[in-house]
Amino acid sequence: MNNERRISVLRIGHRLVRDDRVSTHVGLVARAFGASEILYVETEQKVKNSIDDVTKRFGGELNVKIIKNWRQIIKNWKKNGGIVIQLTMYGLNISNIIGKIRKLNKDILLIIGSRKVPGEIYYLSDYNIAIGNQPHSEISALAIFLDKLFSGKELKKEFSKRKIEIIPSRYKKEVQELKNEC
Amino acid sequence: MNNERRISVLRIGHRLVRDDRVSTHVGLVARAFGASEILYVETEQKVKNSIDDVTKRFGGELNVKIIKNWRQIIKNWKKNGGIVIQLTMYGLNISNIIGKIRKLNKDILLIIGSRKVPGEIYYLSDYNIAIGNQPHSEISALAIFLDKLFSGKELKKEFSKRKIEIIPSRYKKEVQELKNEC
Repeated sequence: MNNERRISVLRIGHRLVRDDRVSTHVGLVARAFGASEILYVETEQKVKNSIDDVTKRFGGELNVKIIKNWRQIIKNWKKNGGIVIQLTMYGLNISNIIGKIRKLNKDILLIIGSRKVPGEIYYLSDYNIAIGNQPHSEISALAIFLDKLFSGKELKKEFSKRKIEIIPSRYKKEVQELKNEC
Repeated sequence: MNNERRISVLRIGHRLVRDDRVSTHVGLVARAFGASEILYVETEQKVKNSIDDVTKRFGGELNVKIIKNWRQIIKNWKKNGGIVIQLTMYGLNISNIIGKIRKLNKDILLIIGSRKVPGEIYYLSDYNIAIGNQPHSEISALAIFLDKLFSGKELKKEFSKRKIEIIPSRYKKEVQELKNEC
């Protein structure tokens, strides 16, 4: 994985209660697939707590923030030389554009929405990219984008400061507790 | 995509109300990434309705069923020569096993659970496979498994009998209505 490129995920459009689980899954995907930060617009504190709890046990350094002004976040990101990508089924098919994005090698602010996102996101983004042009899920869209960006290498990443670790197994659950943080 | 191999997704462990959206996303991912069937254990009818509605508009022939006896489904699948794979973070890392699964070229019953699945699923499955050994989401796990199985070709699939179609765009939403079903 390229450790220099910073990936921040901006999740817009959380609806109270009904989106709890989806928003939590989004954060866990961000962590597991190599993003360094997830920003939620006005999400409940318990979503952040669930993800922080996973990071505490399984390691890594995902930054989870609840924010209000997403326009300012986008503006600053661009000012600092990063690019902004919205994942949406209306965008360019990822198969045709991921090679170009990889080569740009710039920090990426990755916007994912819930059912509806404000129309201005489409033109504020440098690219709108579709993981196929079919309806599915912001969770799968985020995972596939990051997996293709990192060419699958993120799936073998070792997380720092982990307290537990899974031993891959064909038939059972095997978890190892690590006495010294590694 | 290999059209001869049949992929059926078996979703176990839906919890009423709180899992509605996640269960719906699972079905949409199954459809968009090339499965031909999704079987829900005791899920609400409205989950099936949402997915059927997407299929009606965007095309394809995903079979959505609500079932009760998942043990019988697994038993029959094996009897008919198919293999059974559970996606779980405790399993073998997909990067090490997907080549072998692809070469087997057999029908696959793909089991995905909610937070907890019955322990017997681990030994009833021919393989337990992890999309990385980190916690994330059954939605992302399903998408990544199918994307790697089909080597990304499913993202360019054209769906039969579609009434609408998205025109990929860098900056806007563009949808085409098709007068004649294609």
